[in-house]
Amino acid sequence: MSPILQLSAVELRERLAKGALRAVELAEACLEQIERREPEVQAWTWLDGDHVMAQAKALDALRAQGRPTGPLHGLPVGLKDVIDTAGIPTENGTPIDAGRKPARDAYVTERLKQAGAVIMGKTVTTELAFFAPGKTRNPHNPRHTPGGSSSGSAAAVAAGMVPLSLGTQTVGSMIRPASFCGIVGYKPTFGAIPRSGVLEQAASLDTIGTFARSVEDVALVSDALFGYDAGDPATTTAPAPRLLEIAASRPPVQPALAFVKHPAWDKASPDVHDAFGELREALGEICEEVELPPHFAGAQGLCELVQKVELAKSFHRYESRGREQLSERMQAAIDDGRRVLAHDYLAARDWPRLLNAALDAVFERFDAIVVPASAGPAPEGLETTGDPVFNGIWTLCGTPAVTLPLLQAHNGLPMGVQLVGRCGDDGRLLRTARWLAEQMSESA
Amino acid sequence: MSPILQLSAVELRERLAKGALRAVELAEACLEQIERREPEVQAWTWLDGDHVMAQAKALDALRAQGRPTGPLHGLPVGLKDVIDTAGIPTENGTPIDAGRKPARDAYVTERLKQAGAVIMGKTVTTELAFFAPGKTRNPHNPRHTPGGSSSGSAAAVAAGMVPLSLGTQTVGSMIRPASFCGIVGYKPTFGAIPRSGVLEQAASLDTIGTFARSVEDVALVSDALFGYDAGDPATTTAPAPRLLEIAASRPPVQPALAFVKHPAWDKASPDVHDAFGELREALGEICEEVELPPHFAGAQGLCELVQKVELAKSFHRYESRGREQLSERMQAAIDDGRRVLAHDYLAARDWPRLLNAALDAVFERFDAIVVPASAGPAPEGLETTGDPVFNGIWTLCGTPAVTLPLLQAHNGLPMGVQLVGRCGDDGRLLRTARWLAEQMSESA
Repeated sequence: MSPILQLSAVELRERLAKGALRAVELAEACLEQIERREPEVQAWTWLDGDHVMAQAKALDALRAQGRPTGPLHGLPVGLKDVIDTAGIPTENGTPIDAGRKPARDAYVTERLKQAGAVIMGKTVTTELAFFAPGKTRNPHNPRHTPGGSSSGSAAAVAAGMVPLSLGTQTVGSMIRPASFCGIVGYKPTFGAIPRSGVLEQAASLDTIGTFARSVEDVALVSDALFGYDAGDPATTTAPAPRLLEIAASRPPVQPALAFVKHPAWDKASPDVHDAFGELREALGEICEEVELPPHFAGAQGLCELVQKVELAKSFHRYESRGREQLSERMQAAIDDGRRVLAHDYLAARDWPRLLNAALDAVFERFDAIVVPASAGPAPEGLETTGDPVFNGIWTLCGTPAVTLPLLQAHNGLPMGVQLVGRCGDDGRLLRTARWLAEQMSESA
Repeated sequence: MSPILQLSAVELRERLAKGALRAVELAEACLEQIERREPEVQAWTWLDGDHVMAQAKALDALRAQGRPTGPLHGLPVGLKDVIDTAGIPTENGTPIDAGRKPARDAYVTERLKQAGAVIMGKTVTTELAFFAPGKTRNPHNPRHTPGGSSSGSAAAVAAGMVPLSLGTQTVGSMIRPASFCGIVGYKPTFGAIPRSGVLEQAASLDTIGTFARSVEDVALVSDALFGYDAGDPATTTAPAPRLLEIAASRPPVQPALAFVKHPAWDKASPDVHDAFGELREALGEICEEVELPPHFAGAQGLCELVQKVELAKSFHRYESRGREQLSERMQAAIDDGRRVLAHDYLAARDWPRLLNAALDAVFERFDAIVVPASAGPAPEGLETTGDPVFNGIWTLCGTPAVTLPLLQAHNGLPMGVQLVGRCGDDGRLLRTARWLAEQMSESA
């Protein structure tokens, strides 16, 4: 791997800004790394080297002319193939959308271009960002799943093909693949990043997130994406935080972490139990065990209920264009979703208010909640993308979550430590995560 | 009736501002009129003359000290008894809430107080703003219903007891009683007036509106109520229009009206057919017949479906406190609402987008749509409050609507002409309505 690719996105940005590195050099290094690893990893569904180099050259030319470019100038970004790219195939992981070329960029694509990013290509998603796997394999061991649904975006960053990528999470599609691939995955507060032009699966859960190899790097790219968009009713005109600035800052006092026995704790593998035991020992008094009220036990199920109801609605158009081309699991989910009573659906939609009230009490005393990011390391086999059982609560609640690649299973595969913050307090969450990552690397 | 009470709220405001009228004089005149008419009309559920006079005196004292007061200084306003008033009974038309005294004012109550209004008292609502009638009778003929659910607020204004009042509409609870009582009723664009502290029946339909005897008067009081409130997710931070200023202004060109054969047209009484025939003749080329796309036919049913689903959720707490104290019709609505599939509910919630796209095409060419406000004059008897069959479409779509008391049935009872405007374009709607009212009074 080129030494350039060892650098963080923040470091790359500095070199690009100073002229110590040209966008074409970085793009070439990424393309070479892709050539090296792609046959095994299969992270990309659309990639055109000429298209990449043309963008990089144009950006170098702008810089040479002294014309102002944005905060991501020259940084390559991979986009999950549920994010629309004008004139570039966006197939949403389903043969039903084969050959689909959107006329317009998604909001986030447009923002990335404005910020000077190089759109590297489109990464593999599971079928319609649900469970049926794509072709991608885990870069740490190709016999294992990379997780899903943001499989390609997580694997591409983990394989060093690209410093940054975007994914989406409706239950656990950011945090789980990041955990399995050993990178940082960040799911912001629900509504923080506008979703116009991104495949709608479940409107009240779908969240766009970012992958990178460090907390500062996810903060850097997310800063370019937070905002208000009239096309996405979940967004607000509240001012966006300066994530990178806050994430890179020193916590005013030593952060306090709440370890919660997640309702799925007993479903976690011995690897997770062992690693978390060690982690808690290493953290000592920084981390205190906190019990969640018993009603959190049902939250994962409620998240999946909301998902199925809304997915049955959103994907009706796919079903009507070719139900037989949908996976069996998708067909079953649509059928399940259609059987749910409005009463149960609205009750589920009401839960986040109650759950967040309980979480707020935790966040009065703690900077972040610490829980596993996944039930174990990436399972062997490519037939499933693993279980999002540690993710649904936080997606239902809309709380920001970030996973750090701090743990290792006995088979050597990475596992993530998930930190969860208070809704709207993404800056504090990332600052705490950056601090924790630093503590752990110092003590290692 | 005191000659003071013949004046419009706008005129009263000017006299109060100049010192030509004191708030106590106006309050006294209102209380006298209430004493005269209340035994027959029964508009009030809570009224305390001392409380009224104390407010009026305090406002006069403030004015005498030259201390600034708000735009409604000294104007008495009646509040439907679903709107919380701190320390004053708010019983929502159900014995289950008998003796309930909220600790806090509703957003609108607070805004009225800040604007210097005199809170006159609480007006009769049907049971939980649904169909089971209260005690109120039509001021034009006590053997007829005043309409509902904002029965008391409409009747109080129609009986000259108060120049202004507030009500709510979830299907047809503003426009219908205004039509039956022969006054102006205005339902703003959905989300324009924050609903915090107001009984929630159906969160995606509930709209607060205003009653008065003229378009300028509903604009005046509504100006004090439009706004953003973090407690009501339907509200936005978009700047509020200056309704009174726009309503009172001259239309830049002669307004064009679209008469649509409402899907319920055949359900309208011969009175409506005759009166609308005459109206259209009087309007001549100002008014053109426009056909709505066929999918509007189902909109009333969709509105009622959304209402029942959401009401079943909102009123669960009443049911659990005493189902046997709820009317049979309410119990049936709750049961119906609980049987609806989430899929059908979400589909219904999606319709307004499609319907509004069709309406937008109409509003490209016309200033307002003209339709009946009700299926006829107030029906005889006090067992029902009439049929909201001409109202559900516009509530579902969230479009602003205003009714003008321009028509008369053969039995002498008033009937309203409903004008509907584009979502968010309340100013243009009220300007058009004011202009039309003027045209008709000149030609009369």
